[in-house]
Amino acid sequence: MSYKAPRGTADVLPGDSRKWQWVEETIKQVCRRFHYEEIRTPLFEHTEVFQRGVGDTTDIVQKEMYTFEDRGGRSITLRPEGTAPVVRAYVEHKMYGQANQPTKLYYFAEMFRYERPQKGRMRQLNQFGVEVLGSADPAVDAEVIDLAMSCYREMGLTSLKLVINSLGDKESRENHRQALIAHFSPHKHELCSDCQMRLENNPLRVLDCKQDREHPAMRTAPSILDYLNDSSRDYFEQVKEYLDVMGIAYEVDKNLVRGLDYYNHTAFEIMSEADGFGAITTLAGGGRYNGLAEQLGGPSTPGIGFGMGLERLLMALDAENQVIPVDRSLEAYVVAVDNQAQKEAVQLVSILRKYGVQADKDYLGKKMKGQLKAADRYLAKYVLIIGENELEDQTVTVKEMSTGNQETIAKDKLIGFMKEKCLGGKGHE
Amino acid sequence: MSYKAPRGTADVLPGDSRKWQWVEETIKQVCRRFHYEEIRTPLFEHTEVFQRGVGDTTDIVQKEMYTFEDRGGRSITLRPEGTAPVVRAYVEHKMYGQANQPTKLYYFAEMFRYERPQKGRMRQLNQFGVEVLGSADPAVDAEVIDLAMSCYREMGLTSLKLVINSLGDKESRENHRQALIAHFSPHKHELCSDCQMRLENNPLRVLDCKQDREHPAMRTAPSILDYLNDSSRDYFEQVKEYLDVMGIAYEVDKNLVRGLDYYNHTAFEIMSEADGFGAITTLAGGGRYNGLAEQLGGPSTPGIGFGMGLERLLMALDAENQVIPVDRSLEAYVVAVDNQAQKEAVQLVSILRKYGVQADKDYLGKKMKGQLKAADRYLAKYVLIIGENELEDQTVTVKEMSTGNQETIAKDKLIGFMKEKCLGGKGHE
Repeated sequence: MSYKAPRGTADVLPGDSRKWQWVEETIKQVCRRFHYEEIRTPLFEHTEVFQRGVGDTTDIVQKEMYTFEDRGGRSITLRPEGTAPVVRAYVEHKMYGQANQPTKLYYFAEMFRYERPQKGRMRQLNQFGVEVLGSADPAVDAEVIDLAMSCYREMGLTSLKLVINSLGDKESRENHRQALIAHFSPHKHELCSDCQMRLENNPLRVLDCKQDREHPAMRTAPSILDYLNDSSRDYFEQVKEYLDVMGIAYEVDKNLVRGLDYYNHTAFEIMSEADGFGAITTLAGGGRYNGLAEQLGGPSTPGIGFGMGLERLLMALDAENQVIPVDRSLEAYVVAVDNQAQKEAVQLVSILRKYGVQADKDYLGKKMKGQLKAADRYLAKYVLIIGENELEDQTVTVKEMSTGNQETIAKDKLIGFMKEKCLGGKGHE
Repeated sequence: MSYKAPRGTADVLPGDSRKWQWVEETIKQVCRRFHYEEIRTPLFEHTEVFQRGVGDTTDIVQKEMYTFEDRGGRSITLRPEGTAPVVRAYVEHKMYGQANQPTKLYYFAEMFRYERPQKGRMRQLNQFGVEVLGSADPAVDAEVIDLAMSCYREMGLTSLKLVINSLGDKESRENHRQALIAHFSPHKHELCSDCQMRLENNPLRVLDCKQDREHPAMRTAPSILDYLNDSSRDYFEQVKEYLDVMGIAYEVDKNLVRGLDYYNHTAFEIMSEADGFGAITTLAGGGRYNGLAEQLGGPSTPGIGFGMGLERLLMALDAENQVIPVDRSLEAYVVAVDNQAQKEAVQLVSILRKYGVQADKDYLGKKMKGQLKAADRYLAKYVLIIGENELEDQTVTVKEMSTGNQETIAKDKLIGFMKEKCLGGKGHE
């Protein structure tokens, strides 16, 4: 029997986990500066949180969910996207009643989509995302975009393109919808079967179809931007003005449609323009979803957010040759000459760690020479040697590997010495 | 329709997420000092990773797994425990072939158990754990226990009890097994139905039964410690000596049996002894599992690890009245007098954040007075005011809230001023 991780999933091994830690730490710092707080929701939800009846015409909801019955016969679904669970939590915990509004949240979460695995598309993927609930101020739309761009900039990415669009309010969307139906209906039978259904349920998503991309009716399709009513147009103008004020460059793409049906007004995507990044260039996408909280049983609440794929982010860092700073050295490696010294070594390592020094030793019964080789492989900054003389004299010999300098130090002075060396005297306790 | 998180799961909201972050950060620092590296495995595995045929007599594997078929008809299971996936990854990626051994890993992972929810027992729970593969040195057993205790100590917990036992090697276990069968067989029909099955499959687990705890045969049951062969006894002695050397107090409990079948030699649990902690006092548990890597298709490999419940850890901190240090203040809140000033405020907030200062503003169209109130609620250290005069003079008035001191500063000097105040001049970029 061969045991493998399920298809479309991946282990993150020690070499890479440091990179993930750095990415997450960097993003958390950006969120702190933007004054966003973390929220964590369960890995699965009742299926109806994602499948809210009519209107869920997206592939994610229709075909790609990990849905199953639990032992109590309830249908539950592994989280395929981050927004609905956060809004469900916002409503369930009546966060709209808190004094500080809007509610600005961020999350790190695994997402699950039962897709055909392909490069950069996994069945379990990691997302960072933010959701802001309780403000219809276009400055929030700009802030959310600023936050996403700041994360990328902070990590050194430069080849980025920000694309924005407005999907308008309900009235604008309905007018556009009618125009789309009128426009595409004569070509209905030339479109793919998915689009024939979309044309009835949500014609906006026809514009997003990969299969019918080249159909001539696509190029002449009515643009939502021509159907925005005054307030929607004004809203979009303000978002753009705020982006200008922040010095954030963007392109307006009237065909930008987001993959989930609950968006309105601002929609945006951030793409990598790095050479050789691959065909799927979208790094992050988001938009406004005024009305979603109502669908989930809450009061009428404006909301906006985005999701950022972290696997994609790591690919983009690679594509731009950005090296993630990872310190692979070890502060102290303790080498011991024999069994009795091993006991001393175990004690010393334990104490060093207690005082804040990173320390390790051999656990394979290696001879001195093998232990010293291991110290080299671990890039030890200091090698602490407990030999026969040291055992007798209650000392430890400390070798600084960068200089080759060697000092023999009394055991009771050693912790102070190592704290000074490794922690600049600050250290622990 | 009412939307709630599934039973036995919980949202972590902003107030609490800071506590989780602190716990995780503290543990990560301990792991760094112990020279352990993070590993991340997928949320689900092929079911056979957890259900490895005979011998899986534990409740977790038999009754409590979230198992379902994916759309391709494969049986997958949401991770109920952390060890098997890590060992699966260790084998799959041939980590035993790496130069640096043993392989020392830690993980943070959600676990899923379909249990009747009760206080401190959730269906989705969060664990921190470590696994060390590739060394049969009893010093590693002590190190792993040291690491667990260090995490608790680091967070200020003091009312802890460490209990250890040895389950011996295969030969010792087999001898003990025969003795247990001989001992309990006369009482077989007085035991619960689970135990009647356990008596055939894995009589060791009879000792762990909650239902039959009071049966007189329990007290007189043969102890594994009386059946340890010489090498197992010697191994256990060494583990205890190393714990002594590290200054870690423990009790030997000959009835300590771990909930998973693959354990041998050292088993341990850490309990809270804090008043009012509740009936289930186990905070962490682990043990040696030499042979598990073979079961998962790898070479013969010694291994040891533990899992630590993080919900339990937070409960223990509460029970010991340990306050988690969380800074709820905000560095800078920008207040603007009118629409034109709002645009300036948006720009200022964006620039402050870019330079590393934590900043926020109003997004609800509040008047000055309401904005100042919000600044108070956010515990702003500095309130930056853009009023009519400031707009005209291209200045910003900065009020230090702790002192009430107020200064009007030219816009082009402001970033330097705020960096000095908030970041001690270091800051960003």
